[in-house]
Amino acid sequence: MKTAILTVGTEILFGQIVNTNAAWISQQLQNMGYDVMYHYSVGDNPGRLKELIHFAFHDCDLILTTGGLGPTQDDLTKEVIAEAMGDTIVENKECMEVLMSHFEKHGYKFTPNNLKQAYMPSRATVLPNDAGSAPGFAMEKDGKMIIAMPGPPREMTRMFEKQVKPLLEAKQDSVIYYRLIRTFGLGESMMETELLPLIDGQTDPTIATYAKEGECSLRVASKRPTREEAMAAVDEMTDKVTEIIGKYIYSYDDEDLINVVAKLLLEKNITISSAESCTGGKFAAALCEIPGISAVFERGIVTYSNRAKMEELGVKEETLTAYGAVSPETAEEMVRGLAAKTGSDLCISVTGIAGPGGGSEAKPVGLAYIGLSYKGDVKVVKHMRASSGGRKWTQNSVLLSMLYQVYELIK
Amino acid sequence: MKTAILTVGTEILFGQIVNTNAAWISQQLQNMGYDVMYHYSVGDNPGRLKELIHFAFHDCDLILTTGGLGPTQDDLTKEVIAEAMGDTIVENKECMEVLMSHFEKHGYKFTPNNLKQAYMPSRATVLPNDAGSAPGFAMEKDGKMIIAMPGPPREMTRMFEKQVKPLLEAKQDSVIYYRLIRTFGLGESMMETELLPLIDGQTDPTIATYAKEGECSLRVASKRPTREEAMAAVDEMTDKVTEIIGKYIYSYDDEDLINVVAKLLLEKNITISSAESCTGGKFAAALCEIPGISAVFERGIVTYSNRAKMEELGVKEETLTAYGAVSPETAEEMVRGLAAKTGSDLCISVTGIAGPGGGSEAKPVGLAYIGLSYKGDVKVVKHMRASSGGRKWTQNSVLLSMLYQVYELIK
Repeated sequence: MKTAILTVGTEILFGQIVNTNAAWISQQLQNMGYDVMYHYSVGDNPGRLKELIHFAFHDCDLILTTGGLGPTQDDLTKEVIAEAMGDTIVENKECMEVLMSHFEKHGYKFTPNNLKQAYMPSRATVLPNDAGSAPGFAMEKDGKMIIAMPGPPREMTRMFEKQVKPLLEAKQDSVIYYRLIRTFGLGESMMETELLPLIDGQTDPTIATYAKEGECSLRVASKRPTREEAMAAVDEMTDKVTEIIGKYIYSYDDEDLINVVAKLLLEKNITISSAESCTGGKFAAALCEIPGISAVFERGIVTYSNRAKMEELGVKEETLTAYGAVSPETAEEMVRGLAAKTGSDLCISVTGIAGPGGGSEAKPVGLAYIGLSYKGDVKVVKHMRASSGGRKWTQNSVLLSMLYQVYELIK
Repeated sequence: MKTAILTVGTEILFGQIVNTNAAWISQQLQNMGYDVMYHYSVGDNPGRLKELIHFAFHDCDLILTTGGLGPTQDDLTKEVIAEAMGDTIVENKECMEVLMSHFEKHGYKFTPNNLKQAYMPSRATVLPNDAGSAPGFAMEKDGKMIIAMPGPPREMTRMFEKQVKPLLEAKQDSVIYYRLIRTFGLGESMMETELLPLIDGQTDPTIATYAKEGECSLRVASKRPTREEAMAAVDEMTDKVTEIIGKYIYSYDDEDLINVVAKLLLEKNITISSAESCTGGKFAAALCEIPGISAVFERGIVTYSNRAKMEELGVKEETLTAYGAVSPETAEEMVRGLAAKTGSDLCISVTGIAGPGGGSEAKPVGLAYIGLSYKGDVKVVKHMRASSGGRKWTQNSVLLSMLYQVYELIK
């Protein structure tokens, strides 16, 4: 089904925010077999918004909008859609009740403009908002459909997954089944070259590669009359892919490396502690985003200064002087100190040059040493990934390497 | 001048890349006083591209495009623009010379499809590409102007700054000046209610509010014949805003709270250490993303287990038993222990319920206690922000509170 994504908000046109909503929705629709033909962004202007809706419908059968559903005066998406679809806005009892209880629950003060959120087009199917106060809605007319969702990504993604996806899946006449296979340590063009025999001339299942910050993913998709047929085709192709690049694959279900690692730690009940320098706590923070991780994560120490490395982990002053803070020797003493202190099954340390300053020819920005202690074995792994992506990018790249090292140890 | 930004590329519609080009160009145009009315994205499809150009010109006088200027078969932007502007493509001698020398210089192999890049609409003004092989161009017809730039951000931004900006500045008759004011602790509808006397009926300067994860921003903008007049109008309005909601404002220049805090710590040379439980290292990691922070950040400890709280910070077992890990008493002992251990000027601790499990009526998810030790004074602040946003959201909300507490102490 030909689809347009219409994101509403002056902050997009001002360039104050990057339009991640359009990209995210596109990915979801693509995976479901919907063809995204256009992205449009427009400000909170009723005339232009209405014109765009008409323009989009001349070529597309489905429009997904985000933004402009809030309580303030410039939130006009609902009113404009109602008008464009030949409907009127009325008070919606269900919305009113949800709204009132939302405000009560959070102890927010109810201002008169909030009432606006309890009004809906009379023919609309209301889509409840689990993560905020503005509900979304769907409505149809003459075979054309429009689905309106709130702008904040957190609210929109939840609404899409819980309400919009099932609604769109029900409209499909064939079924798309796909797998997103995640790999680490293999570049996109290298992956494409290796898989060329499978990709070339292939119409179904299709294989597509995607590069993502320091990683590479692979999408194997099939569109068939039934789910069973599509699954069988994808599984067969997945086996062929695994034969060629299996050693780089860490997930067949589009799981983030952090989730794969956390699940393994929890399943195998492996306790873990971390000592970080250049990543500044990102490893600990990433693990601690996983619910229930307290069962295995004991502690993390951000030994940013040399003093902290010595006091907290027993790194020797001579080592720091002779080899420097960024050295395999320091990484090893860090992880040995951490293991002695915590007794955790697995200990990991890291020290590196996050940049933008502090690099040299011998120790450039992007260099890091990762220390690992597991069941009595200690080793240090060198990570080097030069980049012009800046400090945050470099830290995230080191973090991915740390996670992959843990994965390799405990998989 | 009313402007549309038209980004061309199937990878945008697939959601494979986020459209940062549109946001970046918008910011530039906004700052120059051009009104961006639309963002459009479309695939490499000549029919749709041509229709969009006609649609955009019915409301706008200027279109900026990115993408589709490369050598491959599906790069069609140049051809479609020429057709839409009633022109034809001819070989351009200047482009041919530049192209040949580009290939020679980089030692690339010249394939026949590269020749495509030496062809241009006959009336086009060529915009050389300093960072790649595909030149851009500008052309006018009947008072409408179109400027085509390449898609890769590095090539596009350089071309914009060096060629497009001067070209557009020469067409200006007014100037826009604006401020982005950041606040903490005030919801969007509450802010709008408070500022209603200023917002109502206001045409210039304009005031707009924006909600962002747990924070709220305000944009005050004015469009006047000269920069001086616009600045004066914005400054006057900023004073009025400050009179009403001044106590919530932490930046008048759209700075993130983390940057404001880091800058203050560095400027005032205040050393800092952290002890985190529920945020799992996010506070340390956020600070460590700032270049040069090693001058003041001494260490961070993620005391996730009770054992770590006792061993690392000297929290008493009796305290944990009597009041629980999430209590003002534990937060206070954590921060006192950290201060004694590190001697940092400012120490911060946090313990809370990140969820989704572990909450109770007395201690619900979203509750946290933040301990602060600064110049000998110790205090504990209660944070409570119920939310259905999930664990990560709750952690980020606690992180913002921690940063704001530090800001309040050292501002």
